[in-house]
Amino acid sequence: MDVRKYLEEKKQMVDSALEGYIPGESEFPVALHKAIRHSLFAGGKRIRPILGIAAFEAVGGKGNGILPFVCALEMIHTYSLIHDDLPALDNDDYRRGKLTCHKAFGEAVAILAGDGLLTEAFRLMTDRTHQEALGCEGGVVLGIVHDMAHAAGISGMVGGQVVDVESEGKKVDLPTLEYIHTHKTGAMILASVRLGAVLGEANEQALKALTRYGERVGLAFQIADDILNVEGKAALLGKKTGSDLSKGKATYPSLLGLEESKKRAKELVDLAVDALSGFEERADPLRQIARFIVSREY
Amino acid sequence: MDVRKYLEEKKQMVDSALEGYIPGESEFPVALHKAIRHSLFAGGKRIRPILGIAAFEAVGGKGNGILPFVCALEMIHTYSLIHDDLPALDNDDYRRGKLTCHKAFGEAVAILAGDGLLTEAFRLMTDRTHQEALGCEGGVVLGIVHDMAHAAGISGMVGGQVVDVESEGKKVDLPTLEYIHTHKTGAMILASVRLGAVLGEANEQALKALTRYGERVGLAFQIADDILNVEGKAALLGKKTGSDLSKGKATYPSLLGLEESKKRAKELVDLAVDALSGFEERADPLRQIARFIVSREY
Repeated sequence: MDVRKYLEEKKQMVDSALEGYIPGESEFPVALHKAIRHSLFAGGKRIRPILGIAAFEAVGGKGNGILPFVCALEMIHTYSLIHDDLPALDNDDYRRGKLTCHKAFGEAVAILAGDGLLTEAFRLMTDRTHQEALGCEGGVVLGIVHDMAHAAGISGMVGGQVVDVESEGKKVDLPTLEYIHTHKTGAMILASVRLGAVLGEANEQALKALTRYGERVGLAFQIADDILNVEGKAALLGKKTGSDLSKGKATYPSLLGLEESKKRAKELVDLAVDALSGFEERADPLRQIARFIVSREY
Repeated sequence: MDVRKYLEEKKQMVDSALEGYIPGESEFPVALHKAIRHSLFAGGKRIRPILGIAAFEAVGGKGNGILPFVCALEMIHTYSLIHDDLPALDNDDYRRGKLTCHKAFGEAVAILAGDGLLTEAFRLMTDRTHQEALGCEGGVVLGIVHDMAHAAGISGMVGGQVVDVESEGKKVDLPTLEYIHTHKTGAMILASVRLGAVLGEANEQALKALTRYGERVGLAFQIADDILNVEGKAALLGKKTGSDLSKGKATYPSLLGLEESKKRAKELVDLAVDALSGFEERADPLRQIARFIVSREY
C-alpha cells in the first residue's frame, strides 16, 4: 500500500467533514469563527483522526459514521495548540508557517476560540444523529466521550502540559520527560486509536492489542517530533527549528542525544507493529503510519 | 419555605460532592490541582447546581443521583470565571475577596486549570457509574451532555463572551447587550434548569414550562448582577463595585438607568414565576430562588 496516498485521502475526508461541522466565517460572532477556522484549517496533518479511522478499519469498521468522532479529536488537538501557543505558555508567533491564533486575532479571542473548539468537540460527539448513523448504542458513545475527556484533561493532556510548563528552564530527568510526553501527546494519540477500535466494535483482544499499539506510537511520535525540532527543515516545520532548545525545553535529544533518541523511536515503532501481529492486511495502514511517523520530514 | 436555608443546605450538598470529584491538592501535578481547588472552592454560591436540583425536585426527581451532573455545571461555570478574569479578558485581580487564579498561580497554570475543569466536567457527566446510579439510559445522558456543550460553547457562553470582549469601550445597543447576557450567562442557567428537568424525567409540558422559567431567570439574574455591580457592597461582592463602568462595559443600568433596570428584573422574575403556574408546592424552591435573585445583596 502507498501510505502517502492513504494519508492524503483520509486527510481530505477529515478536512471536508470538519468544514461541515464548523460555522462559516461570516457567522456571528465573526471574530470567533474566523479564529477557529484560521487554526483548524492551518494545514494540520490530521494524524489523530487518521489513526482513529485506520484503527476502525483494522477491526472491520465500515462507512463514514466515524467521521464526526475523529473530527472531534482534531478539534481538541487544535484547541490545545491554540492555548499552547499563547504568550503565557509557549509564546509562539508562527505555527505551520501561519500566524498563531493570538497573533492573528488577539489573545482574548484566541483563548475563547480554544475554549469554543474544546466544547464544540463534545457537542459534536454527543449529537444523537451521529450515534444513530453509526448504529451503536448511547452507552458506547458515552464511553468514547468519557475516554476522550480523560485523555484530554487533568489526568492526560492538560496534566502533561502543566508539567511541561513547570519544567521549562529546569533540569528534567527522563521519568519526568516521559510523563510529559505520554500525557501531553501520548494520551490523545492513544485515545484516537482506541476510539476507532471501540466504534469499530473491536473484541477485547483486539482492543488490548490496539491499546499497546497506541501507547507505543504515541511516544514514538513525540520523540520524532523532538528530533524534528532539532534537525527538521524550518520551511517544512513552519516555525523555527531549535525552538525547544532556545526555550530551555527538555526533549529526548537533549537528554539522550540525537542518535539514542532515533534508536528509541525506531524501537518503539517496531514494538507498535509487533502489537498488531494478530491482525491481517486490514491493519496495514496502522503499520505503515507507525513507520512513516519516525521517517517523516514533514 | 425558608429560601436561605434551602440554598445553604443544597450548597453544602454540592460542595461536599464536588470535594469528592476533584483530586486532592497534593496530587501530581500539584500546581494544577491547587489552582483548580483555589477557584472551585472560592465561596461560589452554587446557583447553577441548585437550580438544577430544584428543577429536578420540581418534576418529582428523587435522590442524589443528580449530583455529579450539577457539579459539572459548577465546574464549567468556574472554568469560565478563571478564563474571564485573565489579563487578556477582564484582567481582574480579585473575585469573591480572593486572588483570582492567574494572580495566585500565574497565567499559564490558570489557563490550563480552566481547560482542565471544562474537560473534567465532561468526564464526570459521562462516567457510566453516575448514569447507572440515576437509573436512566445512556441516550438521556448523551442528550444532557449535548445540551450542556451547546450552552457552554460557541453558540452559547463562549459566543457571548466574545461579543462582550469585542464590545468593551464601545457604544452598545440593547439588542447586543441582550445577546451578550442571554449567551454569556443565560444559556448556562437555562441549561442548568433543563438538566434537572430532563434527569427528573419531566414530561414535554413541564419541560417547556421550565425552559421558559430558565430563560427568564437567566436574564433577571444578569440584570441583578449588573445592578449589584453599581450599587452593591464591595465587601459582599468581593471585588470593587463600579468595575463594569470603569472598564467601559455595557450594562443594563448604563443603558436603561438603574430604576428601569430594577423594574425589568422584577418583571422577568414575575414572568418566571408565572411559567410555573402548572406546578404545585414542589416548585416552591424555584419560585423563591427567582424572587431571591433580584432581592439579593450578596
